[in-house]
Amino acid sequence: MKKLSLIDSAFLMLESRETPMHVGGFNLFTLPEGAGEQEFLHGLAANMRTADALQPPFGDKLKMGRLGLLGPLYWEPDNSLDLDYHIRHSALPKPGRFRELFALVSRLHGTLLDRNRPLWETHLIEGLPDRQFAVYSKFHHAAIDGVRSMHLQQSMYSADPRERMHYSPLSMAARDRYRDALQIAPPSDEAIRNVAEKLKASFDSSGHMLGAVRQYAGAWMGRGGPLVVPWKDVPKSSINTRVDGARRFVAQSWPYARIRAVGKALDGTFNDAVLAMCAGALRIFLHNHGELPSQSLKSMVPVSLRRAGDIDSSNAVGAISADLATNIKDPVQRFRAIKASMEAGKALFEDMSPDEASLFLQLIQLPGLLLIPLGLGSRFPPYSTVISNVPGPRQPMYWNGARLEGIYPASIVTEGIALNITLVTYDEQVDFGIMACRRSLPQVQRFIDYLEDSLVELEDAVGISSAGAAKPASKATVKAKAEPKTKAKTKTRAKTKAKTKAKAKAKAKARPKLKVRQKVMPKVKAGSKPRAQRG
Amino acid sequence: MKKLSLIDSAFLMLESRETPMHVGGFNLFTLPEGAGEQEFLHGLAANMRTADALQPPFGDKLKMGRLGLLGPLYWEPDNSLDLDYHIRHSALPKPGRFRELFALVSRLHGTLLDRNRPLWETHLIEGLPDRQFAVYSKFHHAAIDGVRSMHLQQSMYSADPRERMHYSPLSMAARDRYRDALQIAPPSDEAIRNVAEKLKASFDSSGHMLGAVRQYAGAWMGRGGPLVVPWKDVPKSSINTRVDGARRFVAQSWPYARIRAVGKALDGTFNDAVLAMCAGALRIFLHNHGELPSQSLKSMVPVSLRRAGDIDSSNAVGAISADLATNIKDPVQRFRAIKASMEAGKALFEDMSPDEASLFLQLIQLPGLLLIPLGLGSRFPPYSTVISNVPGPRQPMYWNGARLEGIYPASIVTEGIALNITLVTYDEQVDFGIMACRRSLPQVQRFIDYLEDSLVELEDAVGISSAGAAKPASKATVKAKAEPKTKAKTKTRAKTKAKTKAKAKAKAKARPKLKVRQKVMPKVKAGSKPRAQRG
Repeated sequence: MKKLSLIDSAFLMLESRETPMHVGGFNLFTLPEGAGEQEFLHGLAANMRTADALQPPFGDKLKMGRLGLLGPLYWEPDNSLDLDYHIRHSALPKPGRFRELFALVSRLHGTLLDRNRPLWETHLIEGLPDRQFAVYSKFHHAAIDGVRSMHLQQSMYSADPRERMHYSPLSMAARDRYRDALQIAPPSDEAIRNVAEKLKASFDSSGHMLGAVRQYAGAWMGRGGPLVVPWKDVPKSSINTRVDGARRFVAQSWPYARIRAVGKALDGTFNDAVLAMCAGALRIFLHNHGELPSQSLKSMVPVSLRRAGDIDSSNAVGAISADLATNIKDPVQRFRAIKASMEAGKALFEDMSPDEASLFLQLIQLPGLLLIPLGLGSRFPPYSTVISNVPGPRQPMYWNGARLEGIYPASIVTEGIALNITLVTYDEQVDFGIMACRRSLPQVQRFIDYLEDSLVELEDAVGISSAGAAKPASKATVKAKAEPKTKAKTKTRAKTKAKTKAKAKAKAKARPKLKVRQKVMPKVKAGSKPRAQRG
Repeated sequence: MKKLSLIDSAFLMLESRETPMHVGGFNLFTLPEGAGEQEFLHGLAANMRTADALQPPFGDKLKMGRLGLLGPLYWEPDNSLDLDYHIRHSALPKPGRFRELFALVSRLHGTLLDRNRPLWETHLIEGLPDRQFAVYSKFHHAAIDGVRSMHLQQSMYSADPRERMHYSPLSMAARDRYRDALQIAPPSDEAIRNVAEKLKASFDSSGHMLGAVRQYAGAWMGRGGPLVVPWKDVPKSSINTRVDGARRFVAQSWPYARIRAVGKALDGTFNDAVLAMCAGALRIFLHNHGELPSQSLKSMVPVSLRRAGDIDSSNAVGAISADLATNIKDPVQRFRAIKASMEAGKALFEDMSPDEASLFLQLIQLPGLLLIPLGLGSRFPPYSTVISNVPGPRQPMYWNGARLEGIYPASIVTEGIALNITLVTYDEQVDFGIMACRRSLPQVQRFIDYLEDSLVELEDAVGISSAGAAKPASKATVKAKAEPKTKAKTKTRAKTKAKTKAKAKAKAKARPKLKVRQKVMPKVKAGSKPRAQRG
């Protein structure tokens, strides 16, 4: 029996019908040549079901004591494991477009897992065109975080299209094989952290901690410079409302090279560019809805505290508050403000040990978690949104010969934070999954267009020709209309974009496509080694 | 705003992730000739979405006060109604047999409705063979009971295959049309009962009440004769265990005439015959699992307290405890014991006004409801199971020309009662829907065979030749093996059955079939008038 950490337990305590606390997403595959859909999917399911010893968390269920969720919680093996319950076949209604897939994922993501069983479900989804199929999975956040889910995926798939699995990808065998490939020793007992115990052990033993807490307190008082702290100056918008139990999910891919090039041109990281792309999209979204706040939006940006080689801990994630600078019109200025706030956030942790960083992050997050059960999350949101960047495999992967086309993450919305943007870097692309409260953000599918608009705006600003498109005049976009005082350059951009979008839409109508790929995509070096979460 | 009655509210208070309190089921249809599946289903959905004014409960959501579920609850119109959320398209994975349909219904029935919206969902399900499609619906039991759902269905469908709906079946227009057809005045305010108020008003005003309570108390003391009371002498079995949040659902049809003929031959009602058929099946089920208790099983049998013409009240259902006499081997003796207990249960109510009957039933049920939140439902089950018989339309019905082939109900399992058998009489058939806790009753699909076995046993006992089958020797069934001391006659029956079943199975393999129809089925007079729930 393994004890749950305080943070792992918190995801269970804070869960309600309105805010399920599971993460997951769907993976898109193409059937191997010559394989029939029904036979292949049933083969995958049968293979998964062959496992005797399941790698965690597939075979473990929750064990509570007399105090229920308030007492200590443990994972224990489920001795009456019912794999048919966890591994499910589903299908899309016709015409089986991504629209139907997103609707199904929205619904599946909006229902609670059963706590009497191991906290996961996998759905093999048929009914897509072009020999594609999808696999939607969900795991309780008490059992898994984004980086761990990537480790799990890599232990399930292979970089070799000819490889066929002779053991269940859920099995300990699959996990051991993956660990051997990484050449890492199992984590020591000492590495399995329990936050409650550490709170006692290390609270007064660290000078760095004290300094960080002092600096943090200074930021609250307005002396933090670019350092952003939760709850301070977080504006209200339709994103920060009460949420109900239904979800809207959309997904889309962008070339990794496009986003990386923007970051490079502005002397920032890939993650800075992702945040700037999202910030621009949020600005357009709120502007078009007539509710762009004068204060800039703040985003929670999870950072990995996972030690190299730790593929077992459920949650090893902390958080930085990033200033999204949505009140700055100029995209370059906005990028610089975002970058500065990320650097200030990361600097806080530079001198801390991983344990101290973990402890510190949990200390500063705890008050926010406590607001949720009080029903105050929507009145005092600590952040405007969450933008999470999870590194995935950087080469094409295969599952029994079926090519993995994309890894689209689906995460959590909570009381007061009705939008979550999570992305996975896979192969040469970046796969975005956007999860929203269905009622608060009915038009979230437009966010996909705004992300492209925002990326094009950044590319234009730094002089990268986007998509090599010509720039003839065309009718202006909604955005250009709503913002008549834009500078000439932005206007041209908007016009170009309108034309590009019209073309893209005409194309999309002919055959739905999830990927926005481009001709001029530079080759990115593939590496099988998983990287740390970008902070 | 309409206030919820105490019983309606109880279904909300007692609900948990493990015990969702919604009822529903799936209706099976055949597409009209020449209609394409995708276009027809999208047409039905589009037609449903046209409603402006929705008939209750489609447009109403819950309104709670400061006390939450403990205070008074109201239904109020949902001003941001999102019909796309409630009306959903789904599909079955290949090969689209009833097995896949049952799996989907089990899953959909095992997830909680969202209390921020009107408490219902409808799924248009494609992917069945033979031009069939299914419509699964679920409604919260706080908003609807079995008889009301039949009223709703009749207001949605038409007996005329040529009729096309020009207004949404969810609309007030559909309801008014149905009410006009019934020629009934709307219920007066007085008819909208509030149990809490009646408790105060009528508790000491009725002589009949006092007599009933006295007789009831006598039965508890062992002086009740055939009268069965909840909690008394209820044996324990795998049906009466803790339940988890997953379900197993199976469905099947039988000819109305076959069951009715058994009741007639033994001088009982159709409902007595249904109970005897279920009792026999339960006996086989428990016997085969080596856990037939020496005490007989007891069943809760809902009885309708709905007044003629009341098509609006949510819940107008009381309950009788029936002795299922599962400890009696002889089917005729068993039938007589069941019939006697039903007569004793009904006699209690004979002299009461409907209000008094309703009050009395609620009084005797209340202690049981209170056990559920205490987690004691499984330790002190008031009944062994629930067997509910809901009268449906007695002629073929159509939805925009699509023939309604069956109405398969899906009901509730609760803590301690892991099995629910509900049936609907439709046209010339009886449609059974059996809902079970997935973990407690993993082999519930066999119950369908046992119901047939039990009906054949009753038919044999009263000399009705079943299915006109020949009686050659064959290998014995599991039941015959497990019960070697059976009399010669029963043995022959078992052999015949094994042969008949083998034949039926071979046939079923070739093409899955939900209906056990027979050649020699006498014509039953069709009547459009809904009847009172059979008690």
